[in-house]
Amino acid sequence: MKKIEIYDTTLRDGTQGEGISFSSLDKIKIAQRLDKLGVAYIEGGWPGSNPKDMEFFEKIRSIPLKKAKISAFGSTRKGNIKVEKDFNIKALMDSKALVIAIFGKSWELHVKDALKVSLEENIKMIYDSVSYLKSKGRYVIYDAEHYFDGFKANRDYALKTLEAAKNAGAEVLVLCDTNGGTLPGELAEIIKTTKSSIKAKYGIHTHNDSGLAVANSIIAVEMGCMHVHGTINGYGERCGNANLCSIMPVLQLKLGFRCVSDRNLKTLTDVSYFVNEVANVIPPKNEPFVGESAFAHKGGIHVDAVMKNIKTYEHISPELIGNRRRVLISDLSGKSNIKYKTSEMGFEEEFEPSHLREIANEIKLKEHRGYLYEDAEGSFELLVREKKGEKEEFFELDGFRVIIEKRPKKESYSEATIKLKVKGITEHTAAEGDGPVNALDNALRKALEKFYPNLKKMYLTDYKVRVLEGKNGTKAKVRVLIESANKKQTWGTVGVSENIIQASWEALVDSINYHLLKDKSTRKKK
Amino acid sequence: MKKIEIYDTTLRDGTQGEGISFSSLDKIKIAQRLDKLGVAYIEGGWPGSNPKDMEFFEKIRSIPLKKAKISAFGSTRKGNIKVEKDFNIKALMDSKALVIAIFGKSWELHVKDALKVSLEENIKMIYDSVSYLKSKGRYVIYDAEHYFDGFKANRDYALKTLEAAKNAGAEVLVLCDTNGGTLPGELAEIIKTTKSSIKAKYGIHTHNDSGLAVANSIIAVEMGCMHVHGTINGYGERCGNANLCSIMPVLQLKLGFRCVSDRNLKTLTDVSYFVNEVANVIPPKNEPFVGESAFAHKGGIHVDAVMKNIKTYEHISPELIGNRRRVLISDLSGKSNIKYKTSEMGFEEEFEPSHLREIANEIKLKEHRGYLYEDAEGSFELLVREKKGEKEEFFELDGFRVIIEKRPKKESYSEATIKLKVKGITEHTAAEGDGPVNALDNALRKALEKFYPNLKKMYLTDYKVRVLEGKNGTKAKVRVLIESANKKQTWGTVGVSENIIQASWEALVDSINYHLLKDKSTRKKK
Repeated sequence: MKKIEIYDTTLRDGTQGEGISFSSLDKIKIAQRLDKLGVAYIEGGWPGSNPKDMEFFEKIRSIPLKKAKISAFGSTRKGNIKVEKDFNIKALMDSKALVIAIFGKSWELHVKDALKVSLEENIKMIYDSVSYLKSKGRYVIYDAEHYFDGFKANRDYALKTLEAAKNAGAEVLVLCDTNGGTLPGELAEIIKTTKSSIKAKYGIHTHNDSGLAVANSIIAVEMGCMHVHGTINGYGERCGNANLCSIMPVLQLKLGFRCVSDRNLKTLTDVSYFVNEVANVIPPKNEPFVGESAFAHKGGIHVDAVMKNIKTYEHISPELIGNRRRVLISDLSGKSNIKYKTSEMGFEEEFEPSHLREIANEIKLKEHRGYLYEDAEGSFELLVREKKGEKEEFFELDGFRVIIEKRPKKESYSEATIKLKVKGITEHTAAEGDGPVNALDNALRKALEKFYPNLKKMYLTDYKVRVLEGKNGTKAKVRVLIESANKKQTWGTVGVSENIIQASWEALVDSINYHLLKDKSTRKKK
Repeated sequence: MKKIEIYDTTLRDGTQGEGISFSSLDKIKIAQRLDKLGVAYIEGGWPGSNPKDMEFFEKIRSIPLKKAKISAFGSTRKGNIKVEKDFNIKALMDSKALVIAIFGKSWELHVKDALKVSLEENIKMIYDSVSYLKSKGRYVIYDAEHYFDGFKANRDYALKTLEAAKNAGAEVLVLCDTNGGTLPGELAEIIKTTKSSIKAKYGIHTHNDSGLAVANSIIAVEMGCMHVHGTINGYGERCGNANLCSIMPVLQLKLGFRCVSDRNLKTLTDVSYFVNEVANVIPPKNEPFVGESAFAHKGGIHVDAVMKNIKTYEHISPELIGNRRRVLISDLSGKSNIKYKTSEMGFEEEFEPSHLREIANEIKLKEHRGYLYEDAEGSFELLVREKKGEKEEFFELDGFRVIIEKRPKKESYSEATIKLKVKGITEHTAAEGDGPVNALDNALRKALEKFYPNLKKMYLTDYKVRVLEGKNGTKAKVRVLIESANKKQTWGTVGVSENIIQASWEALVDSINYHLLKDKSTRKKK
């Protein structure tokens, strides 16, 4: 089994992506998680470019890592300056990282237009920088920026830049498709010619501007590049870097290479989720391998087939990368979907076909009005029980009022009052909160906890707002999704209205009703 | 220049994606837009599977299309049933579509486990269905479902199924990687063997479960498949279908094939945006070619180089697909970014370097607290002007109050009161609204329009809410982004708070201040 060196650059190239920003503490957390995953290298940042990155290198030195080596990134020395006087090279040394990834220009266009130095000087800059770092005992990875574009523009010059890095002692030559415009066919050809011209250890670094970063990385590995750059979730400038969450499963599960242990690969979905959480990114659900929808079956015919044999519509088993199979409820759902879900909910008795149809119709109607049950299984179960005539009313609302006040130079203030009845007893109460929804949440709990003390065991874990029809400005309809949890489980609930308070209220009430329902049935069973 | 037949299945396979749902009217609108783009075929739906799809086929018949042909999708007849009695085949005929895409099974696993018929019967089902439709004068496209998996499991059988379709008269044989698990190398090999075994016109249909759908489609075209299936924005079951918004530019701009006219290709970004709007999908910004970030430059060094020569960090010109170059403001921004943006804003005079640094620091601080200026150029400009000492106060707030009331069985009711001063004159007013933010918006306008009648020319076009720290439940911090427009321009503004009303207020006030600022400077110039 051939080993692949995974070189993660989420913390450096990844942060060039729109909307991606990490504090140095975030970076530490991610580095520890990547080390646990078992990648070979973690590129921590560009110490010459900003103080936050330098802070990371200082902090990470005191943190023991199991396997991963920390790498610092920087450019070759500037033109016509002594290497030991160069600010950026100094910063690389100051980072005290033992592995240095240094990038140089392979494309004459960049040498002339961006660096504005002569072609010969650029070769010297590469040679000087690599050999200086080598003389200081560093392990040097050479990133040949724009290698493929450079090769197409002037093959001999591109090769000369690589040769300079190699002769200066670089351990790995990384061929970079920096602008992401190279196609698989030409990429394979260029790698072949390059490898036959210069014997060295090669790496690959691709970008996704043509939607081909994963394919290009895999083809490069098949051509013999055993050192692979990429980022978790494909973060990166413009369309992102090559996505390690796709590359690693393809290489390891489909081509028999070894990136990390099989056991660690089973945490890949978690790693993806963790990094998205830290970056505060809501990932597209349809991400290959690690996305929420990656093994989600919606079409009735697919669900029917998967219930017979999972291999019919799944290319690998989701468990191998720690993901899970899901069956979706939507207006495309056949009765198979509803049947799968209701049995998942533990309804032992079979539903009548007419019941299943009625539920499917209700779902269709509600989704048309903006509800979404895919993420709101709590609300879905309440709806199913209502259709079965099993709805339980835990309280009766007499009314609520929420007030938000703002005075100059003061924080805005939110207060909610609520009046409700439980088993004929009226409760009228008020609460403040951080914002109107929180105030309403607090008031509702305050009113109900008297009757249902177990409500204290339940808490909200996520609150999402989605504006459904942006075109109407502040009049737009909104969908609120709430995720709640107790010690035993988590569940989602949904509310829709043009009034965000009303939508939040619906989702809140469903969430509480679901908890009370489960709590009650638990007690019954005892 | 070789022509490629683009076969769009956004309206059928695309709707299998999680969260994707179209009404029949949505489908009509999208079909018209696709026709304008110039695709060869539009697969409208599966008339046998749901009434909504049948409705689409009825409606679309009365709508003149310039170029695209409408295709209906369905399965081969069921096992052991006469083809003319088959419900699904009947529905295909009832759709009155002249082009039929019919899918059959190539993989013995599916024949045995999903269809539960004999291998021979499956061959007959394919032959009968295609020849029946041919006898009725239909143009038949045969989709060989799971062709690559089927070929790997039993090559001879997979080839036999293709042969049956061809002998029955199918015009195109489409090789489908239904589960999305096939790798580029094996895909190329299988296409090669298949083409040498059976002479026919071939098509390709791939899915993105391994992140390789675009690469696989392109490689298939290079191998001679001139008929390409895909969806706009890559919608589709699980990880989606092959994304036409990537495939078309790669084929046409990089490989010299012709999918649509060059002029129409320039509307591709618009088409992508339009379909996302109809589907109510917020697309990932980093989509290749058509994404908002596809040509967005963030790193200071990139911005600096792009200002010298755009080819340094752009693989194609964004204009070719109707997209645009952007420079982002963030904590990674160098002074180059701020300089680019301020000159874009029309500040003729140069900023002092110390000013630029001060602005960059303020941005960093605010982004740390949850603000995002990438989409809020209105708020960014106000901040820049404030730093320049050019802040103008158009009004002074004395306070506001928002009340939301809910009574049983009644719609919730929202009312806002607001008290403010303009040039020493107090205005105290109240307004209702569809929800609290709308009420506040209405009250604020009501108070200000007296003094600034031109406010009537400005309206809100988009309102987005993003919960920043889901973990705190309803206490979470939210970011509100508002997009506004007048006849001349659109602008975005941002607000952040734990109180959604307060965050909305901030963004509203910025939006109105920006409008008044521009309105005033316009008047000055006259």
